[in-house]
Amino acid sequence: MIHDLLKAHDAQFYIQHSGNNNFYYATKFKIPNLAFYIIGVDGTDLLVVPEMEKNRALRESRVKEIASFTDLGYHERFKELKDSKKALSQTLIEILKTHKAKKILIPPDFPAFLALEFLKYFEVEVIQDPFQKMRAIKSKDEIEKIKDTSRAIIESFKFALKLLKNGVRDCDKLRNEIESFLFAKDYLAQDTIVSSGKLSADPHCIGHGKIYEHVIIDIFPKSRKHGYYSDFTRTVILDDCPEIEEMLDAVIEAQQRAISIIKEGITAKEVHYAVCDVLEEKGYHTLRKKYREGFIHSTGHGVGLDIHEEPRIFENEDVLKAGMVFTVEPGLYYRKWGGVRVEDVVVVKKNGCEILTDFPKKIDLRRG
Amino acid sequence: MIHDLLKAHDAQFYIQHSGNNNFYYATKFKIPNLAFYIIGVDGTDLLVVPEMEKNRALRESRVKEIASFTDLGYHERFKELKDSKKALSQTLIEILKTHKAKKILIPPDFPAFLALEFLKYFEVEVIQDPFQKMRAIKSKDEIEKIKDTSRAIIESFKFALKLLKNGVRDCDKLRNEIESFLFAKDYLAQDTIVSSGKLSADPHCIGHGKIYEHVIIDIFPKSRKHGYYSDFTRTVILDDCPEIEEMLDAVIEAQQRAISIIKEGITAKEVHYAVCDVLEEKGYHTLRKKYREGFIHSTGHGVGLDIHEEPRIFENEDVLKAGMVFTVEPGLYYRKWGGVRVEDVVVVKKNGCEILTDFPKKIDLRRG
Repeated sequence: MIHDLLKAHDAQFYIQHSGNNNFYYATKFKIPNLAFYIIGVDGTDLLVVPEMEKNRALRESRVKEIASFTDLGYHERFKELKDSKKALSQTLIEILKTHKAKKILIPPDFPAFLALEFLKYFEVEVIQDPFQKMRAIKSKDEIEKIKDTSRAIIESFKFALKLLKNGVRDCDKLRNEIESFLFAKDYLAQDTIVSSGKLSADPHCIGHGKIYEHVIIDIFPKSRKHGYYSDFTRTVILDDCPEIEEMLDAVIEAQQRAISIIKEGITAKEVHYAVCDVLEEKGYHTLRKKYREGFIHSTGHGVGLDIHEEPRIFENEDVLKAGMVFTVEPGLYYRKWGGVRVEDVVVVKKNGCEILTDFPKKIDLRRG
Repeated sequence: MIHDLLKAHDAQFYIQHSGNNNFYYATKFKIPNLAFYIIGVDGTDLLVVPEMEKNRALRESRVKEIASFTDLGYHERFKELKDSKKALSQTLIEILKTHKAKKILIPPDFPAFLALEFLKYFEVEVIQDPFQKMRAIKSKDEIEKIKDTSRAIIESFKFALKLLKNGVRDCDKLRNEIESFLFAKDYLAQDTIVSSGKLSADPHCIGHGKIYEHVIIDIFPKSRKHGYYSDFTRTVILDDCPEIEEMLDAVIEAQQRAISIIKEGITAKEVHYAVCDVLEEKGYHTLRKKYREGFIHSTGHGVGLDIHEEPRIFENEDVLKAGMVFTVEPGLYYRKWGGVRVEDVVVVKKNGCEILTDFPKKIDLRRG
């Protein structure tokens, strides 16, 4: 696939840097330092890593040819230039020149210091990260991993409901209990949202202080074993608040409408607009109509090795494909009342979709 | 400081992107999405965030002026261009043009897709990240936070020693126990190294399987409350292995020599070479002499909001300053025997340094 891409762009090399899951997905190698995966039309398929990581790369990586910066003359250049970034770019430029590169493709988040140095020697074009694109469609094995994390979330959410029933009414305490529960089972949840009252009108506020009439619980851990995330939100009603309950009912209906139309071939925008349609019909505001309250975010995002990845489910016209896994998470946010949100993860199928986080949508603990 | 930098480079703007702790350090705002902090010679001090984060930014960020991408016309551009990256770069370019930018400074890891678009309108120069540089020197408050995490590490290490004394001999089990112990106390440790036997010859291998005659335990959690890391390694001797013990004695001596010379005014290279000198005197190999076994990594790295940050303690001639906090972690690695390492975190003082991870260096459990 990368070779086709190189030919289509009339380029000789694609370079993927480390520090993101595209690198891990491509190489199956985790590394805390800067490293590079270089793919060339001439058959080059080379991983460049620090010397101290070379043996581990030979053992753990999917890539067969490994070179260390030391092998490629980095240390001599560093001694001469006394600048690690210049020594690094010269080392990469030298390999590329040796392989007769004229035009190089890089991903959007490639470090600017290298991109600008490359420009002095080669034509450079930023392309959509090809591995990011591949990652959007999950293999069976990846779906199993996301299911595994989804099951752990549901367990932790049931545990949270038990605590709420037992009278726990503090956002920070509930968050800690959920995250510790998951950690003990080998899942890492961070910044779990447990948000109540008017603070919950900010979708990304993790929540603090007392739990009032309702609480949004948004849990998105990754497995510490296999690294895959899942993402799940429910809004729990604890006491009477008609505005919040109406908002929640609307959001649940909007989510159901959206989920009902998801299948291979429709666009992200159609899913997003299905949510907007329901909410607007019910008199709520949306960002689509340029309001700053109401439904003010996108409908969803891909989930996998990252918590936010492709596809985005917003106003974009990307066509859904079987195997895509993403969240469907309409919400409504009003400073006067607070926020509500319902979120599930689905996998797109040929003729519909499967929900990976199956659980009742409306949770009402008013009668305990 | 940024203003001086802008004047020195004859530039009008510095732009810091999110997704790294330099952004957090500069703005005190944590955000999972792409956001920008724009500082101009004309007094511009502006945080640009997605619409849904605007209220939280107003509440949580240190920066006073906040604009959302929506405020700045992103959505209209997106509808026209149908490309989120192009819409984003045009939105930023428009602000910069309005403010009469001619030359822009960016940090090394700035996203290439924006840097290359900027080049069409402005002169662009990559500079060392000014916040990264500021972060190297810690305030009293930051040192207290690193001390706090250091104390938690020592506690978790004592707990690990208890488990070893009780006969635990599995790397993965011991790692899990250490990480769960820390998580319960609100510290997040990941990829904790518990490595034994010949596998330990790879410095970054986290270790698996049985614990043999010795084990390297390298614990580097961050506080889930305040976000600061610390880093600590000890090599525990469990059974006779003269080569490993000799290596460990050499590494301890090398570390002590290095620590004895650390004070404001000496260079990173002097510290690194102090380690190399001791190890070479004892007949071990070093990367300095181009060997691929022996002491094959740097002597240390800064520790703070990131586990690896400035200053680097290697062959670089950066001058140490009071308040710098970094690791001193010589190690020796031979495929024939395995590896050993001893690591402490120190803070540089005017006339010496203070060890923040004080604990005996040689740990011998042969007599239980």
